[in-house]
Amino acid sequence: MIRIAIDAMGGDKAPEAIVTGAVEAARKAENQYEIVLVGNSDRITDEIHRHYFTKDLSISVVHAPETIGMDESPAMALRRKPESSIAIAARLHQEGKVDAVVSAGNTGAMVAASLLYLKRIKGVKRPAVGAFMPHSDGVCFIIDVGTSVDSRPIQLLQFGIMGSIFVSHILEIASPRVGLLNIGEESGKGSKAVQEAYRMLEASSLNFTGNLEGRDVLSGRADVVVCDGFAGNVLLKFLESMGKMLSMTMRRTIRGNLPGAVGLYLIRPSLRKFYKLFDYEEYGGAPLLGIKGNCIIGHGSSGPRAIKNAVEEAWKMIQRKVAFHIESQIVQMEGD
Amino acid sequence: MIRIAIDAMGGDKAPEAIVTGAVEAARKAENQYEIVLVGNSDRITDEIHRHYFTKDLSISVVHAPETIGMDESPAMALRRKPESSIAIAARLHQEGKVDAVVSAGNTGAMVAASLLYLKRIKGVKRPAVGAFMPHSDGVCFIIDVGTSVDSRPIQLLQFGIMGSIFVSHILEIASPRVGLLNIGEESGKGSKAVQEAYRMLEASSLNFTGNLEGRDVLSGRADVVVCDGFAGNVLLKFLESMGKMLSMTMRRTIRGNLPGAVGLYLIRPSLRKFYKLFDYEEYGGAPLLGIKGNCIIGHGSSGPRAIKNAVEEAWKMIQRKVAFHIESQIVQMEGD
Repeated sequence: MIRIAIDAMGGDKAPEAIVTGAVEAARKAENQYEIVLVGNSDRITDEIHRHYFTKDLSISVVHAPETIGMDESPAMALRRKPESSIAIAARLHQEGKVDAVVSAGNTGAMVAASLLYLKRIKGVKRPAVGAFMPHSDGVCFIIDVGTSVDSRPIQLLQFGIMGSIFVSHILEIASPRVGLLNIGEESGKGSKAVQEAYRMLEASSLNFTGNLEGRDVLSGRADVVVCDGFAGNVLLKFLESMGKMLSMTMRRTIRGNLPGAVGLYLIRPSLRKFYKLFDYEEYGGAPLLGIKGNCIIGHGSSGPRAIKNAVEEAWKMIQRKVAFHIESQIVQMEGD
Repeated sequence: MIRIAIDAMGGDKAPEAIVTGAVEAARKAENQYEIVLVGNSDRITDEIHRHYFTKDLSISVVHAPETIGMDESPAMALRRKPESSIAIAARLHQEGKVDAVVSAGNTGAMVAASLLYLKRIKGVKRPAVGAFMPHSDGVCFIIDVGTSVDSRPIQLLQFGIMGSIFVSHILEIASPRVGLLNIGEESGKGSKAVQEAYRMLEASSLNFTGNLEGRDVLSGRADVVVCDGFAGNVLLKFLESMGKMLSMTMRRTIRGNLPGAVGLYLIRPSLRKFYKLFDYEEYGGAPLLGIKGNCIIGHGSSGPRAIKNAVEEAWKMIQRKVAFHIESQIVQMEGD
């Protein structure tokens, strides 16, 4: 039986929202896989009991006496709290007792625990966190949005490989278009590292479509956007803030006059759909790629829907053997 | 008499839109300053004659037989075309015949011409291009959005100094809040260069408010956002593309049902105001700071309004002696 561990203590709304999301995922899963909630077992059990008809769901609980806070220094927290929900979930995965880990907790700690217990895939220079970014025509996958800084060309190439594999298996796109984020369209633009990465991506077997400028990210011109974690992280958080800013500004601009107020009322249902485009909860979590295992990092403020989507994403990653495909590709590249 | 040169041949809509913008600026200027249009004099004169009542306006024309295209390689184009409108405008400024240059043409060529003819301010490691970014509460100024890559800590510090001086004089904010773009709020985040820049900004006399994440840029938490040109350029172009993406997506989401169509019709005037927030034309051009002179770079697709606003921005830069204040501050810092 496939098992997916969820860090029940991670995230701003833990454990309530996490457990609710887990219950929803379990209902939808119809016993195709089991959910293992890791954390304070009393609190988790209490939360489960708030829901009806959970008896037949495939949910189990593993007690973790410690919790790593959202603002703790990752490496230190992990060392000091080996019995934290994050550490225990990662160890369950290491020991083969679960097949994936989902956490909306301290991202750095989750990455560190994955590196410590699950280890990097051989040949991967640096694991990376990717994220879906919504645009008018669908989504693109931007990698790295994690904490890589000053990425070397080989790392950027590997981000492209890992992103391409993830997207081809999860979104079922046969040959994802891979673009390199840069400050101009021509191949000679950007830092030396980015220029060298351009050449490596061009020489690779990826469907590399060249440089992308900031304005091209949301144009749908690429399925995978490769970049250093600094730019990716800034861009992702910038986009996240847009939804809130938009709704505030729109209300302020449009209200204040009668036709505006009436118009706003009339378009409200559609507007809700529109804002949903900017809602990370719709897009599951951010996979950590390049490790020997399946790890999905949820947004810190994940609600039940985000958790449910992240679990389903993890389920796809397991079934479609994303980590295995990454390993094969990296090994093959090393051999070249 | 103060004179402002405009590269009449630069930009996607040159010379028509540029000359129209120049005429509008001249009307508003009421002979407080003179506008010098640089480019093909026949074409410029033709364009001027399309407008009525231009006889009393302070506009003169300087002929430039060559034009640098938008896509030409900057350094090479400048060498090959010393009689281009960009080169001649920069030389007029160097010779003291004009007090500022505005161009919506090839950005790289304009930067290169400024460096070649006007030179850097002594002590400035690297000139930078700054740009206003609209947000729900006003604007912030992001620097560098140009072509700096792998900026060193001292360069980032100087971006902060130059940006702070520009904003304090142009927006008349007494002590602009300066933030450092980073991937986390804590001081230990980011690349080594960014960490060191944090320490230097903190030790400086600037009103440094710490790290800003991508989500904080539009929050109004800082007046000046300091970053490497790579991140700044990507972010600015990303934001520019949002307006278009928003209107497309909103139409598609909201149309298709009767209440939506009616609602959309009712809020149309307000919506226009809303989209205006994302319209770079409203915000003048992007100043090139750190050179001995006043240079404003307009967006490639600048229309008349953008040009008029850029000219007025240049006029403020001259009157308020922005370049002089930058020089004093940099000299003082060097002495410390």
